[in-house]
Amino acid sequence: MNLDIIIKSGIVATASDTIRADVGIKGGKIVILAEDLEDDAAEIIDAKGKFVLPGGIDSHVHIAQPSGDGILMADDFESGTRSALFGGNTTIMPFCLQERDGDLRSAIDWYHGIAEGQLYTDVAFHLIVANPSPQVLGQQLPAAIANGYTSIKVFMTYENLRLNDAELLATFDVARQHGATMMIHCENEDAIRFLVERHEANGDVAPKAHATTRPVAVEREATHRALSLAEIVDLPIVIVHVSNAAAAEEIQRARQRGMKVTAETCPQYLMLTAKDLDGMDWEGAKFVCSPPPRDAAEQEACWLGLQNGTFDLFSSDHCPFRYEGTDGKMNPKGAKNFRHIPNGIPGVETRLPILFSEGVNKGRIDINTFVAVTATNHAKTYGLYPKKGTIAVGSDADIAIWDPELVRTVAHSDLHDGADYSPYEGLTLKGWPTTVLLRGKVMVRNGHLEGQLGDGAYLSRTSGAGLIKILDEK
Amino acid sequence: MNLDIIIKSGIVATASDTIRADVGIKGGKIVILAEDLEDDAAEIIDAKGKFVLPGGIDSHVHIAQPSGDGILMADDFESGTRSALFGGNTTIMPFCLQERDGDLRSAIDWYHGIAEGQLYTDVAFHLIVANPSPQVLGQQLPAAIANGYTSIKVFMTYENLRLNDAELLATFDVARQHGATMMIHCENEDAIRFLVERHEANGDVAPKAHATTRPVAVEREATHRALSLAEIVDLPIVIVHVSNAAAAEEIQRARQRGMKVTAETCPQYLMLTAKDLDGMDWEGAKFVCSPPPRDAAEQEACWLGLQNGTFDLFSSDHCPFRYEGTDGKMNPKGAKNFRHIPNGIPGVETRLPILFSEGVNKGRIDINTFVAVTATNHAKTYGLYPKKGTIAVGSDADIAIWDPELVRTVAHSDLHDGADYSPYEGLTLKGWPTTVLLRGKVMVRNGHLEGQLGDGAYLSRTSGAGLIKILDEK
Amino acid sequence: MNLDIIIKSGIVATASDTIRADVGIKGGKIVILAEDLEDDAAEIIDAKGKFVLPGGIDSHVHIAQPSGDGILMADDFESGTRSALFGGNTTIMPFCLQERDGDLRSAIDWYHGIAEGQLYTDVAFHLIVANPSPQVLGQQLPAAIANGYTSIKVFMTYENLRLNDAELLATFDVARQHGATMMIHCENEDAIRFLVERHEANGDVAPKAHATTRPVAVEREATHRALSLAEIVDLPIVIVHVSNAAAAEEIQRARQRGMKVTAETCPQYLMLTAKDLDGMDWEGAKFVCSPPPRDAAEQEACWLGLQNGTFDLFSSDHCPFRYEGTDGKMNPKGAKNFRHIPNGIPGVETRLPILFSEGVNKGRIDINTFVAVTATNHAKTYGLYPKKGTIAVGSDADIAIWDPELVRTVAHSDLHDGADYSPYEGLTLKGWPTTVLLRGKVMVRNGHLEGQLGDGAYLSRTSGAGLIKILDEK
Amino acid sequence: MNLDIIIKSGIVATASDTIRADVGIKGGKIVILAEDLEDDAAEIIDAKGKFVLPGGIDSHVHIAQPSGDGILMADDFESGTRSALFGGNTTIMPFCLQERDGDLRSAIDWYHGIAEGQLYTDVAFHLIVANPSPQVLGQQLPAAIANGYTSIKVFMTYENLRLNDAELLATFDVARQHGATMMIHCENEDAIRFLVERHEANGDVAPKAHATTRPVAVEREATHRALSLAEIVDLPIVIVHVSNAAAAEEIQRARQRGMKVTAETCPQYLMLTAKDLDGMDWEGAKFVCSPPPRDAAEQEACWLGLQNGTFDLFSSDHCPFRYEGTDGKMNPKGAKNFRHIPNGIPGVETRLPILFSEGVNKGRIDINTFVAVTATNHAKTYGLYPKKGTIAVGSDADIAIWDPELVRTVAHSDLHDGADYSPYEGLTLKGWPTTVLLRGKVMVRNGHLEGQLGDGAYLSRTSGAGLIKILDEK
Repeated sequence: MNLDIIIKSGIVATASDTIRADVGIKGGKIVILAEDLEDDAAEIIDAKGKFVLPGGIDSHVHIAQPSGDGILMADDFESGTRSALFGGNTTIMPFCLQERDGDLRSAIDWYHGIAEGQLYTDVAFHLIVANPSPQVLGQQLPAAIANGYTSIKVFMTYENLRLNDAELLATFDVARQHGATMMIHCENEDAIRFLVERHEANGDVAPKAHATTRPVAVEREATHRALSLAEIVDLPIVIVHVSNAAAAEEIQRARQRGMKVTAETCPQYLMLTAKDLDGMDWEGAKFVCSPPPRDAAEQEACWLGLQNGTFDLFSSDHCPFRYEGTDGKMNPKGAKNFRHIPNGIPGVETRLPILFSEGVNKGRIDINTFVAVTATNHAKTYGLYPKKGTIAVGSDADIAIWDPELVRTVAHSDLHDGADYSPYEGLTLKGWPTTVLLRGKVMVRNGHLEGQLGDGAYLSRTSGAGLIKILDEK
Repeated sequence: MNLDIIIKSGIVATASDTIRADVGIKGGKIVILAEDLEDDAAEIIDAKGKFVLPGGIDSHVHIAQPSGDGILMADDFESGTRSALFGGNTTIMPFCLQERDGDLRSAIDWYHGIAEGQLYTDVAFHLIVANPSPQVLGQQLPAAIANGYTSIKVFMTYENLRLNDAELLATFDVARQHGATMMIHCENEDAIRFLVERHEANGDVAPKAHATTRPVAVEREATHRALSLAEIVDLPIVIVHVSNAAAAEEIQRARQRGMKVTAETCPQYLMLTAKDLDGMDWEGAKFVCSPPPRDAAEQEACWLGLQNGTFDLFSSDHCPFRYEGTDGKMNPKGAKNFRHIPNGIPGVETRLPILFSEGVNKGRIDINTFVAVTATNHAKTYGLYPKKGTIAVGSDADIAIWDPELVRTVAHSDLHDGADYSPYEGLTLKGWPTTVLLRGKVMVRNGHLEGQLGDGAYLSRTSGAGLIKILDEK
Repeated sequence: MNLDIIIKSGIVATASDTIRADVGIKGGKIVILAEDLEDDAAEIIDAKGKFVLPGGIDSHVHIAQPSGDGILMADDFESGTRSALFGGNTTIMPFCLQERDGDLRSAIDWYHGIAEGQLYTDVAFHLIVANPSPQVLGQQLPAAIANGYTSIKVFMTYENLRLNDAELLATFDVARQHGATMMIHCENEDAIRFLVERHEANGDVAPKAHATTRPVAVEREATHRALSLAEIVDLPIVIVHVSNAAAAEEIQRARQRGMKVTAETCPQYLMLTAKDLDGMDWEGAKFVCSPPPRDAAEQEACWLGLQNGTFDLFSSDHCPFRYEGTDGKMNPKGAKNFRHIPNGIPGVETRLPILFSEGVNKGRIDINTFVAVTATNHAKTYGLYPKKGTIAVGSDADIAIWDPELVRTVAHSDLHDGADYSPYEGLTLKGWPTTVLLRGKVMVRNGHLEGQLGDGAYLSRTSGAGLIKILDEK
Repeated sequence: MNLDIIIKSGIVATASDTIRADVGIKGGKIVILAEDLEDDAAEIIDAKGKFVLPGGIDSHVHIAQPSGDGILMADDFESGTRSALFGGNTTIMPFCLQERDGDLRSAIDWYHGIAEGQLYTDVAFHLIVANPSPQVLGQQLPAAIANGYTSIKVFMTYENLRLNDAELLATFDVARQHGATMMIHCENEDAIRFLVERHEANGDVAPKAHATTRPVAVEREATHRALSLAEIVDLPIVIVHVSNAAAAEEIQRARQRGMKVTAETCPQYLMLTAKDLDGMDWEGAKFVCSPPPRDAAEQEACWLGLQNGTFDLFSSDHCPFRYEGTDGKMNPKGAKNFRHIPNGIPGVETRLPILFSEGVNKGRIDINTFVAVTATNHAKTYGLYPKKGTIAVGSDADIAIWDPELVRTVAHSDLHDGADYSPYEGLTLKGWPTTVLLRGKVMVRNGHLEGQLGDGAYLSRTSGAGLIKILDEK
């Protein structure tokens, strides 16, 4: 059969199956799965004792976005995709951010420009609509959806990004008419502002105030509201980065009303708590993200949500900023008021090892759930399936080979992103990806980079993609 | 003892007790309750076979408010309080409405001006804050609260009235600091607008569109949001005119979180449904109010809420408009698009007979619950207790004597309001008030008016009034 | 008017009202309430600065019941009613316990026999049906109900008392047909037995095992089951001694399904936790009762339940055993295996001061809620109203005068029951009853006993009593 | 590669993936999946335009059980497995029923005896424990589990089968210690008996009384109780044949408490209602099964449960009885009192077409959910995975080829079971299985039987089977 690569003797897992099989790759695709393929291939990779998993898809990653105050994120596409790759990912989905006073088309062009030739993984872009003007909703957004930008994120918080309810409804309506998928960041900006002002009035401005100004009620309220607005428009939606039981309960209640809701949680809600923000000398700033980490009970609620199907997606919400400033610039994470700490933490490289170690290896979830929430469901939700997200005949040969016994302690010096710290520094994890293939090319082999900058490609999508086409052609 | 009046031999009911007793009145107050008072009084009223109840307090009544399009309400203070009186009420609580472009002080003055000398019942005013400007929140509102206007209504719907979340929070915060009570009309204006535009685009403009553009989700969302904002400010609130099970569930969930929430429902949610809006030749316009009546299952949910303590208050939300125009003017209720039908229906006179007949006489609630939700809880919620709202030594002699066996069919021609129809026309009810005393004066005797215009008075309140003072003095 | 007693100048509170009034008593009844009664009475009691409340009704008290292993309770009717009286109570409701192998009629006779002439308070008996044989259900129980024993308690736990589901249904059905009120002790005996055996197999037999063998799930399950069986029979029921949020949630859910459920909690669930059972040298045995006290979060849930109306009744579940043995007998509370510690703790005298101090004086509940859950609702639930349970014209002059400022520390040596310890020893409480009247006779004056043994009387009831009769006669 | 069979060009679906691939079979197993296998096989089956799905596993099938009154079920293993096969199934899981007065070992032997050589599909047996005597729990059951009978069903209803709570707990405990899976039929027998007696007393004995004597409350109660007992034992369980929203809610609540619960629903709860029992001349008897079908709202709730993951399993609960008697015997379904109608309806052959037509083809669920709830989850739940339940390299070649466009109307004359009617007679369905392979042998080809009696085999299981072994060997 003249294969390019055979991955031999591994345990292949999909979102539902776990089998012992050889995987045959040709032309960048998986073309054959068999019990024992004869070694009729240019290259044989021995995976005995290893898991052969679909390359991770991280559908919630921020790269190179401006963040107010002239601060840029710590990752450009080179460092961001390299870090993702080492973390076992083969596709990430960053955002094209429309500025409040900018237009959508030029935002798309700008992100494409800086991504061009800078990719170690494949990339598809979500759009962020920050200003749903008549021109954007009437022309640019429908055109962008038609061009394959079929997922749109909107914010209910951040002064420069938030949409009000009328804007949310109008944007949802365009998504519904044109078959796009809406992602919602659910926190009530007005309530946060009210609490911020009260904290400031009390001189309560240390990093931990970030958590107390964004209490659970702020997220629960916005979650219920987003779900209600979607119910009125009759639109399935994605609730991103759910941090607690109350917001999860709103999602379950919406499903009981018959709504289709996809829900996401993130490593920070399993591993960090608000106490981490209470660090000495502004070290707490290293853990500032929104929604904020909560407490041990909410961590358990998030684990439970992964176990019982509340959460479909496990993403990093990678959003990296340096803690130490460079070139004489202000220390981005070390401002003198929590309001000026940029929101977001790095995590694209640690997402999968954290879930593998704390979830699979500790028996909280099985390997199929791991694959589902880290790859397959991302591909299905965002129109990349079945090209991406599974190990199946006909799919891209995007594969991560995992050593389930490998024990390593997280050290930022070992990571590959552009930030200068990891919020998980010192955390010992068991189970790491060692070899990663992108469309049949070995990008990382036994922990060493073999791929080239530019090996990653942009993924165009069609709305209502993948799966449906197969069925239509049956 | 030289009493002014003795009401003899009736069944006296309070919010918790039902006794056979004579009630002695002197100087406008109840001064004595006894098993058998000797006839030492200027006047004896025989109440044998009758219920002797506290005069109804209707804490949700709109009088003489302008309603856009140059339309005035059908009731001024004369007709409104007269109608209330015949319905067994001795106190009503209308609103001083700040116009969006007006100030609060002048609104208060204006309503006092038109009420002066025009009252058949006692009156206390709620304020409506439609524009919480710095001047209003910083000065006028605190001043008004200090002057006894200790309850404030805000709207989450109606283009000219709605507050956004920041405005709600700021207003709640003033209420909390100055000890006022917030009442919230919970419907999401943006969602309504979205649905209205969609209906209009489809040419769907008949009165029934009023109901379909304000579905339960719109009320549930706003209810949850109002409760969440109050939770953040740490403020007890009143959710007015709850129409359905889902909104009631939000209130119960908030109470389970430990919040203090007072909740109100109204006769229209027990007796009308959205089908009533589907009348021939715009007759459906006679039933247009917000939230709209729902369906039979939601009616049962509202009865259940009265039975199990979800609802503390039963008010009319009297908001009368004429169906036929006058003086060659446009027919106020008969516009050619449901958007122009003024929202609101009359009901101040039928509120109590409806609940007595359908509730008490049909065994759904007991007489003490009737007294609680129609009088006592209103007085306690809005600072009129113990002067008003109960039959107790020391309270004002505001008393309605009810004939529990009297059967009458509602006919607008028998009612005393300024509208030209009743939404309950033709409804046969058992149990009506026959005699009504206001501060010891017989205002209605056996169905005939004896009181004079001007017998009613304005009631000033102090914040955190009544009950607390008694206790402090102990 | 020639009154027997006037209580002057106190703050009189009912379940809904709080007024400053004089109370006039004649012939053992309250005959008049007035602002200022002239001193036309044989005796004047000055209550200035005091609360004048209905005497407490404790509808859940165990007196002189045998408790297996030959152990008798620590209180007979003399000590039990004396202790109740000093705790501000004027009526208690103990049980006539049918033995599994005995009949109901002889149980009634036996308890009457030992109560005769031994009462300091009024007493009405509940029945306990432990063996619903055809003879009991077909003849004795209907006859007893007709004779005024209109409330029946059944157990879902305790090997000698528990009824199975068929027996519960049959008993409920008799209650429904004959208009009696069912009280249910909800714990799943089989599940407890399973856990007990597991604990014993592990040698885990110290008092704290009493709590771990009766976890919340055991109570939640039985609560849901009792409610479901009552739903099938269509019978309103009373769930006694609810100890936690999950059981309370079942009650709320049943009410949302439209069921009529009355619910009770007790001081031990507000003030004790399972940790109290973990005492040195079997001191933990002093806190053994069923359901067991839980933890701080469940205490808060029980307070919330009192605040938001989940609980209608606050009873002691007084069930006293001596900790030290007497006369060379085995130490009743100090057995060598938790299974042999008799279940129950004393509390009839501390019930009201605990709720007054921790509830009213700490601002968790108002005085009207106090009256409702300690007196009025008991009378209404069990057919003693309006003779008992309120301060109203025509009611028995059962009155406790409370000094809200009096601070005392609980010491068993100050109490009047027959046990040898109090579980609340050392607890400082603010607010105590100082003077108590029973049917117009001063039984306790300023803390000193004036009443005579035998002043208390047995209260016969009629099914569907009190209130309904008043209304029928209207 | 010398394959036995290649299934070419079909759409292969697993519980998570849908791909276009050829399936290569050798030695009864799936050995290869590839985009385009060269025709190197003894036989080529063209599946173009067809779905290639795992053979259905029906884990809830009653065969040849005695049913009281001397009535045998209408199916023996020959007819039962043949009917299953034509319905697209390759494995069914009937029961070895311990009689109340019999032992478990002899029951196993008896069922094996009558199944021997009579199978058209593979078969694994659940056990039914009707008498958990010390001998059964202490010896026979552990031995049976060790021998591969790793799933045990118990009943909370039926006089001859029901276990009480103590028996449930003891049986659960054995299951937990020995690693078996418990299945529970949740209906409260005592409550049913109570209602049956009430109905009979009223002469209400027509078939529809079967539904009214088993209302939702009866199932909800038992569901909550089973879940609570399992919570106490700390045992994951399977709740079988859930028929309504309230029972589903109990399952969701248990999952929110952190319990592992697997839940099943059946075609009758999607397609039938209690009205079907109200047939003329006892035709309603044809629809008598337990729990009974409910109403349209509960049907929607069951669909919602399949969509949102509440239900993991979709089984037939095939339990066939003849409507007309034979050989002069009593008409089994046509008794003169609903109590004597045997409980259960046929459905093993219609299960999959119903879900395919009404679920997949009508867009309610996707094809992967279909595979999951009809095959994969059954195999995983009951220890047959990965040998059974998926299309994957290494799995048995148990395959059903479905024509998604084929339209047929259900007629019992076309079915292959031993009953004399179908409850779905006349129902037109789109999408039927046309060809079925069992371990690589074509059993049904284009609707015609090719397999031989005896081709089916008994499947031994090991406790904690399949998946875990693969992982342990990694």
